[in-house]
Amino acid sequence: MKTEITQDPIPGSKKIYVPGKLHNIKVAMRQIELSDTKHSSGNLEKNNPLVVYDTSGAYTDLEVIVDVKKGVPKLRMEWIESRNDVEKLDSPSSEYGKQRLLDSSLDHLRFEHVNKNPLKAKAGKIATQMYYAKQGFITPEMEYVAIRENQLLEKNSEELRKQHEGENYGASVPAIITPEFVRDEIAAGRAIIPANMNHPESEPMIIGRNFLVKINANIGNSPTSSSIEEEVEKAVWSFRWGADTIMDLSTGNNIHETREWIIRNSPVPVGTVPLYQALEKVNGDVEKLNWEIFKDTLIEQAEQGVDYFTIHAGLLWEHIPLTVNRTTGIVSRGGSIMAKWCMLHHNQSFLYTQFDEICEILQHYDVAVSLGDGLRPGCIADANDKAQFAELETLGELTKVAWEHDVQVIIEGPGHVPMHKIKENMDLQLKHCHEAPFYTLGPLTTDIAPGYDHITSAIGGAMIGWFGTSMLCYVTQKEHLGLPNKQDVKEGVITYKLAAHAADLAKGHPGAQVRDNAMSKARFEFRWKDQFHIALDPEKALKFHDETLPDEGSKTAHFCSMCGDKFCSMQTSQQVNDMAKELEKKKEEFIDHGSEIYMKI
Amino acid sequence: MKTEITQDPIPGSKKIYVPGKLHNIKVAMRQIELSDTKHSSGNLEKNNPLVVYDTSGAYTDLEVIVDVKKGVPKLRMEWIESRNDVEKLDSPSSEYGKQRLLDSSLDHLRFEHVNKNPLKAKAGKIATQMYYAKQGFITPEMEYVAIRENQLLEKNSEELRKQHEGENYGASVPAIITPEFVRDEIAAGRAIIPANMNHPESEPMIIGRNFLVKINANIGNSPTSSSIEEEVEKAVWSFRWGADTIMDLSTGNNIHETREWIIRNSPVPVGTVPLYQALEKVNGDVEKLNWEIFKDTLIEQAEQGVDYFTIHAGLLWEHIPLTVNRTTGIVSRGGSIMAKWCMLHHNQSFLYTQFDEICEILQHYDVAVSLGDGLRPGCIADANDKAQFAELETLGELTKVAWEHDVQVIIEGPGHVPMHKIKENMDLQLKHCHEAPFYTLGPLTTDIAPGYDHITSAIGGAMIGWFGTSMLCYVTQKEHLGLPNKQDVKEGVITYKLAAHAADLAKGHPGAQVRDNAMSKARFEFRWKDQFHIALDPEKALKFHDETLPDEGSKTAHFCSMCGDKFCSMQTSQQVNDMAKELEKKKEEFIDHGSEIYMKI
Repeated sequence: MKTEITQDPIPGSKKIYVPGKLHNIKVAMRQIELSDTKHSSGNLEKNNPLVVYDTSGAYTDLEVIVDVKKGVPKLRMEWIESRNDVEKLDSPSSEYGKQRLLDSSLDHLRFEHVNKNPLKAKAGKIATQMYYAKQGFITPEMEYVAIRENQLLEKNSEELRKQHEGENYGASVPAIITPEFVRDEIAAGRAIIPANMNHPESEPMIIGRNFLVKINANIGNSPTSSSIEEEVEKAVWSFRWGADTIMDLSTGNNIHETREWIIRNSPVPVGTVPLYQALEKVNGDVEKLNWEIFKDTLIEQAEQGVDYFTIHAGLLWEHIPLTVNRTTGIVSRGGSIMAKWCMLHHNQSFLYTQFDEICEILQHYDVAVSLGDGLRPGCIADANDKAQFAELETLGELTKVAWEHDVQVIIEGPGHVPMHKIKENMDLQLKHCHEAPFYTLGPLTTDIAPGYDHITSAIGGAMIGWFGTSMLCYVTQKEHLGLPNKQDVKEGVITYKLAAHAADLAKGHPGAQVRDNAMSKARFEFRWKDQFHIALDPEKALKFHDETLPDEGSKTAHFCSMCGDKFCSMQTSQQVNDMAKELEKKKEEFIDHGSEIYMKI
Repeated sequence: MKTEITQDPIPGSKKIYVPGKLHNIKVAMRQIELSDTKHSSGNLEKNNPLVVYDTSGAYTDLEVIVDVKKGVPKLRMEWIESRNDVEKLDSPSSEYGKQRLLDSSLDHLRFEHVNKNPLKAKAGKIATQMYYAKQGFITPEMEYVAIRENQLLEKNSEELRKQHEGENYGASVPAIITPEFVRDEIAAGRAIIPANMNHPESEPMIIGRNFLVKINANIGNSPTSSSIEEEVEKAVWSFRWGADTIMDLSTGNNIHETREWIIRNSPVPVGTVPLYQALEKVNGDVEKLNWEIFKDTLIEQAEQGVDYFTIHAGLLWEHIPLTVNRTTGIVSRGGSIMAKWCMLHHNQSFLYTQFDEICEILQHYDVAVSLGDGLRPGCIADANDKAQFAELETLGELTKVAWEHDVQVIIEGPGHVPMHKIKENMDLQLKHCHEAPFYTLGPLTTDIAPGYDHITSAIGGAMIGWFGTSMLCYVTQKEHLGLPNKQDVKEGVITYKLAAHAADLAKGHPGAQVRDNAMSKARFEFRWKDQFHIALDPEKALKFHDETLPDEGSKTAHFCSMCGDKFCSMQTSQQVNDMAKELEKKKEEFIDHGSEIYMKI
């Protein structure tokens, strides 16, 4: 496979590992080295390195060379095996999985080190993070995420955490996230660690509203475009820039093999919509879809290592009439397929009627369920309508069913929603879905800007993140227009990282502001290279700066081309600051000597 | 002057003019032609053209060819002259204005048809829109903006206005904006029409929280970059894409001449920060700044036709100590200059002490004052601090002074503010500044994304627009890194248009949703060309679509490359819709015939 996968660290940073205390684990983080401050007095001030959350996996570790034909290291394999509650199967147990493995015409496409012996919970055993949490067992995965969520604080203890002021809708984040707190949140269903035992390569991460807001990047080929190589490249590219999970939404040929490549090379959890592949298996003929094909697809994908499945089980037959007068009908792919199936069969959705059995399958592999919002609004006119909220109530009902099976649950949300209707979505989700984490697509706050929907949706995403949404599914600038390419993926990921970070600041996540403060200090001190390195996108920041001032000297200059030398406010302000501090000193001297203050300030 | 100025209409649209009723005026608007809907039955449904707000001026009128050497048509000249309260001066009355006019070495730079006889209110007369409004006189400018703000409703009366539900912080917009309502808002100081009598080229527009949210684009060269030609080109480019006003922030050479070119070619109000030029006149030596130079600059620029001046008169000497422990000090250019002046002179700011005289000058030409927030926060850490709010109180005090002179006022606001602290800014501005319109720079909701600050700030901008801010000053993706180029200007303008529109939707501005509904209908009906034409950026929408599906046939296809043919939810949903409607019909037939309903939906 020919790929162009960047394996350098992100400019100005290096990989570090923080050891666990309960378990023998080491948590990957990214350390950004900062230069010294040169004070006008001539004194040098040391700036401690900045440690940031890191989703890029082994690809940015100089000590590791990743061979995409072999996949990334299997970090969790030992942890999983040591729990003694899973067994290796002799072969994939899905019909389709077996077929594909035996088909030698696919040899050239197949991942070389494909897993022929998937893991599955032993008979009578439950091996999900939710089960462990309910039993009071703190897994290595739980300790890993606790350390990971805290990293800014632990490494920057000298930085004062700012007191959070103002409205705090969504979160009650503790000052320090402990493994016990993580366990408790998972047991209560308020958070999940998507961690299929067949995806030991994934570095544990947590989705819940009392943790950092996460983002998902959708990748995947469509029949009209792109190849396996491109999809793996896009996936690695999205980890690099900050995707916390990815969803493989491939709908073209060979999606089984594409998925294997992606999972084996993914240090982040991978989600899918199994219905897409089920539909491929019946050549796109919705009428021919049935429970058996869907079930086999669940097992096939679970045994490949998919960490969470989007399942549109809440769209009921009786909801469909509620959509007929909508402006844009049913815009969820899965939703429209199931609605058509119901209409063609004059019957209730098999995803709903078989939901118990679905949960049993998911439990065997610890696949989390992402309850799809098949009736999410596809335009401003349809936002918060009866169809949408009727489905949301059903999603709440299904949440309880999944929890009874110790299956981890997240709830998908809209979509297109004007700003004044966003909060109602969060409030009703919390109410109907028993505080299961909310996972929204934006929402887009207007319909009129195709080509800019990463922005129309980042506005809604940041707001709903503040209100309590746990994960934001990115929207790229190609939304409504075509399949995103590699550059679109990066733009989408960075845009959503900044929206999620804005939400973390507003939620008062401890330590979130440390990075902002480091950036602003570097800005005020004209440490240009540090500014680039602290940025979410160091490459673009450097490129934009260098468009007008490319020479090396400008990297230490006390101005940029925006205002020029004479009009740089930061430069002038530093002079004012020096003068004001000098004056304060004098004032104190005067007071010390009993004199009157000689000016009024 | 060599420029590359696009004079074609925006794709798919044409210029129309709507006549006034009180005055002999015609209000420019943009009409987007839409194609027919082809129903599955084969029936054709006519879609009425969509009329949208248009800032592009004569540049997009096929009947007019603009010669940038002559400037755009002087729309308001007749209205101004007919009021009989202004007189033509024999020559510019500022010293600097005279000098520049007589300096033949500048001939090659000078705008050919430069105004040698500026207008000024006659002795004893007041000729400001605020004065007229207080007197109960509805000017042509007021009727113009009333019609302009209503255009969507008047041209789309067949579209039902949606009932606004949810929190409505900022606005109480009437169903129809009447000229009388406009007059009342201006008399109360809640809105302004920036309309210098020396800028008769400007098409009247209104800034106030009971009107559409407006956006401003900053242009202007800096000493390190760009030329007059480039600035005029950027200005016209920003009108084209939707800038409601522009600010010329030039700080390089020949800013007097650059400004003349820009104003003569501008159909939108032009703002400046006169302090920048005053500082140029003393070669950048802050200590040498004084009231006389500043005053002469005000007169010079007022007689060129600047519509509003940013004046940082609220930054007081005693505020400076409040900034010394800030992370990024004073980030406003004007603010840092005045703070330095105060420190060097051990004296109160002359902008504050001379504010009465400033207002007298502004009144003579109907220049509005935009009270600058010299102490706006430059980073998340400094948001909502004592320095910022102390200055805001002073701005409120100055607002009353300006109003006593019948000078129109807007108030500038931040800056860098995390989401949970945004609303406090709006609340305190309303409280301290007596409901004068708020005009904010973003705010940026995080510091960590240089290269993406159009987005970090569009999030804050959309929110504060919803809360009641009247105009948003755009931030480009080059913010903090360098001077924006033409492409950056377009990206910035479109990003802010979408943020302002999201705010209009949330505020429940009557008719705002008409454009969203037209887009969504076109989307559901696969009218691809209509989608491009309705988009804020038709060029980009088309380009993105054509990257993967360039052929003409794809412009009517019932899918795009995002999901492909088999997985297009809109396509499936239309089929579901047809089936569901068919079923409903059958159901009704059954009921009509007294039979039982044969299925449960």
